Amino acid sequence: MTSHGQAAWELLLPAAAAPARRRGRALQEALRDAVRSGRLAPGTRLPSSRALAADLGVSRGLVTEAYEQLTAEGYLRSDRGAGTWVGEAARGRPGGTPARGGAGTPAPGRGTGTPGGSGPATRARAADARGTGHGTHARGGAGPHAGGAGAPRVRVDFRPGTPDLSLFPRSAWSAAQRAVLARLPHPSLGYPDPRGLPELREALAALLTRRRGVVADPERLVVCSGVAQASTLLGFVLRARGHGAIGVEDPGSPEHGRLFSSTGLDTLWLPLDGEGLRPEPLAASGVRAVVVTPSHQFPSGISWSAERRAALLAWARAVDGHVLEDDYDGDFRYDRAPVGALQGLDPERVVYAGSVSKSLAPGLRLGWMLVPGELLAEVVERKRTMDLGNPVLDQAVLAEFVTRGAYDRQLRRCQRAYRERRDALLAALAEHLPGTEVSGIAAGLHVIARVPGRYGPTERFLARAAAAGVVLRPLEEYGTARPGDGDVRLVIGYAHLAPSVVAAGIRAVAAAVGRG
Amino acid sequence: MTSHGQAAWELLLPAAAAPARRRGRALQEALRDAVRSGRLAPGTRLPSSRALAADLGVSRGLVTEAYEQLTAEGYLRSDRGAGTWVGEAARGRPGGTPARGGAGTPAPGRGTGTPGGSGPATRARAADARGTGHGTHARGGAGPHAGGAGAPRVRVDFRPGTPDLSLFPRSAWSAAQRAVLARLPHPSLGYPDPRGLPELREALAALLTRRRGVVADPERLVVCSGVAQASTLLGFVLRARGHGAIGVEDPGSPEHGRLFSSTGLDTLWLPLDGEGLRPEPLAASGVRAVVVTPSHQFPSGISWSAERRAALLAWARAVDGHVLEDDYDGDFRYDRAPVGALQGLDPERVVYAGSVSKSLAPGLRLGWMLVPGELLAEVVERKRTMDLGNPVLDQAVLAEFVTRGAYDRQLRRCQRAYRERRDALLAALAEHLPGTEVSGIAAGLHVIARVPGRYGPTERFLARAAAAGVVLRPLEEYGTARPGDGDVRLVIGYAHLAPSVVAAGIRAVAAAVGRG
Repeated sequence: MTSHGQAAWELLLPAAAAPARRRGRALQEALRDAVRSGRLAPGTRLPSSRALAADLGVSRGLVTEAYEQLTAEGYLRSDRGAGTWVGEAARGRPGGTPARGGAGTPAPGRGTGTPGGSGPATRARAADARGTGHGTHARGGAGPHAGGAGAPRVRVDFRPGTPDLSLFPRSAWSAAQRAVLARLPHPSLGYPDPRGLPELREALAALLTRRRGVVADPERLVVCSGVAQASTLLGFVLRARGHGAIGVEDPGSPEHGRLFSSTGLDTLWLPLDGEGLRPEPLAASGVRAVVVTPSHQFPSGISWSAERRAALLAWARAVDGHVLEDDYDGDFRYDRAPVGALQGLDPERVVYAGSVSKSLAPGLRLGWMLVPGELLAEVVERKRTMDLGNPVLDQAVLAEFVTRGAYDRQLRRCQRAYRERRDALLAALAEHLPGTEVSGIAAGLHVIARVPGRYGPTERFLARAAAAGVVLRPLEEYGTARPGDGDVRLVIGYAHLAPSVVAAGIRAVAAAVGRG
Repeated sequence: MTSHGQAAWELLLPAAAAPARRRGRALQEALRDAVRSGRLAPGTRLPSSRALAADLGVSRGLVTEAYEQLTAEGYLRSDRGAGTWVGEAARGRPGGTPARGGAGTPAPGRGTGTPGGSGPATRARAADARGTGHGTHARGGAGPHAGGAGAPRVRVDFRPGTPDLSLFPRSAWSAAQRAVLARLPHPSLGYPDPRGLPELREALAALLTRRRGVVADPERLVVCSGVAQASTLLGFVLRARGHGAIGVEDPGSPEHGRLFSSTGLDTLWLPLDGEGLRPEPLAASGVRAVVVTPSHQFPSGISWSAERRAALLAWARAVDGHVLEDDYDGDFRYDRAPVGALQGLDPERVVYAGSVSKSLAPGLRLGWMLVPGELLAEVVERKRTMDLGNPVLDQAVLAEFVTRGAYDRQLRRCQRAYRERRDALLAALAEHLPGTEVSGIAAGLHVIARVPGRYGPTERFLARAAAAGVVLRPLEEYGTARPGDGDVRLVIGYAHLAPSVVAAGIRAVAAAVGRG
């Protein structure tokens, strides 16, 4: 073991002493913090998993898992045969401002104040996705449920981006409301802090640090109405700084374009491949800001590779630019722990945005941003002039809900429900539309299906499905690519549909389109 | 009685048949509607109050009161000796789009669906005012209560614009929350209609029609987070239409300037006199939009005269312009029924904005706009990109609260409390700072006090008060006028202070400044 390995070994000791059920997670957090803080410098070789496991007295599997997770997130790099070392991507906050509850504190102590939070359940993140970005729903005011207002003959709408609203935890939410009205001091009912209620910022910072691997300083957390408002806030700030355009992923969410356009910014499609944004077109674009969905790209469903995460941040530093990370369904992943958010790698370049729209309900209009220090004052002043701040009671209720552990319980509940629906969809596609390739299935609330060309062409496929009462959306609605191979590419949202409805919908489509 | 008088007589019959306790109000509403709808054309002479009272079989006092009220609001004109006739100011909606629940329906039927609403209590409107506009509160994040964060030695802060947060009806609000969570259908928890929840728009339209004399079509009502957001929404829309500046009242709320500035508009102070905006500087200004507070001007406390209301609307039509009516404390008036909102005179030129910030709590961040049809789509799209719409549960709770009659009860409760505090302030000023002239006392949550110069000069007065732990604000903070007569002009907010605290504060000031 090298001397750096020795340092790692010491840093990781408290994590290794954590209770068994959260030891693996504690190990990952301690390792991530050590990289972020610079205590493990870029280039440092890590001991072999076998050696480290022996030193720490933990199972080798835990160490292997930690190495894999942090490699996927871009903190570590590894090469079969050459071992594992600390990557170049991570960039701690400069100047040593200590993150409250964020980086720099040893892992085991974190998040333990949240009851029910850090057990095995923290790994259980439910699955979710979204519509045409944040706004399909709002466009035209169509109801979020299949068979809603509009075309009365629609029986199944595989709209992406809609959670199952019947999963909203009414009684737990009601209990939190009562508790808040009973305890909130009178002055809290006055004009709010535009950044958000302090108790909510504390609760969210702890939650996001624990669940999403971000650097979440409550002083840099701004409560907002959701990712849409986060986009508008950032757009206005960038526009005032002289930006003329912002890059968006292609394929991606058309709603991003509409939101940024309202702030005076043009949007530029930037091509994606199977790993993330392609570096060359990004470098050639001339923009100095992009919005991305690296954890579960919308709509393709890929998780950005570690290399592309690092490349994006290197680009941002080189052009003195900024990245908006839209973590729209980061909490939902079925097969392994979620990939940590990009923001954790460089909190000074990445604006991180998320919301409760997929985990609780879009109607709550509650979300959050983590804002680089350099942008903070401008974002807060924009928030102030936009609405003076979010409603106080809602914020207090969410703080109560998170602190009680009810938010974690809700995520587990959603995860179970959505995984079941995903499985129903995959089974139905395999049975009724054989030959269909499905991707993006590891996470989120939607998948990409590539239906063989013999069922097409796309327009006829969609028209026949619609005639059978099933609404499906082609991938080409979400970007500029037109592969021209004749296959039918679909973005299929399933989370809001009961498993039996999912199956019936796909069966009906198959019957309508025939054997091609 | 002229033939027009005959028409009036027929139109007013249903009102005259209303139950005694709401007959006067019904009469005013019927008369207002008749003018608005054009059934009583501009220039039409009205019968004498004696003749009309005899025809209708009501007391002459009711008719006199109706004539006076509508004259004050600008619908009628009168001249001692020459009688009363229909003015030119009112302009109904063009094209005959019928207002739902607004103009065009006979008065007696209106508002009766709201229990507890239309009795004598509808005349009891509590008093209120605001800070340096909507934003004093938000500026610097100081708490809304005297003795809050900041200077620890402050014992009494006569900050304007702050309601008494201890009056927030926690148990009634909690009951409405429970009712909403028990009944709201699942789809309502999805992405909201950016205009607002239909049931709330219906409830508010009925409420505002009844209480504020506006033309409130639910289809033109946009729920927003308050008057600040209404200003920003309108500012962006006007900027996109090519406006470069907007006029604000001088004296007025500095916050208006900050809000519009965030949308790219310059603000231009326009001088006020004792009746409202002076027409000549307005006409010479070159702006085509202004924001005004005609019901209880902030901060001077005047109610705009009928002539100035008419002149403002004539100007707006001549320049194809728009007026934002900030009805920040329109619900609170002590001595007579509130003067109806300007918007009722011309709903196609006036954007009307109000909120629950003074009646319930600023922390709720709930307000409304009535938007001319021509601007509606742009305002709604701005609202959509700003936050996708207000939180749904809050909207449903307010709808429930209004529909139950709890909102009217809350206004009566506030009115009683604030009148008592106003009286305590007037008594304390008379006793401890004799010679002080007080104006703007008929309504709102603040007054203007002109303290004789022998207690001054202003700077020393304020410094001595502050040294004694009492924070007061000079009128000159709110505009450009510097009378130079040596008197000390103050804007004194009292609503958030118990009567004993009000008295103690003024006593302490008097002791500190001596006899001058």
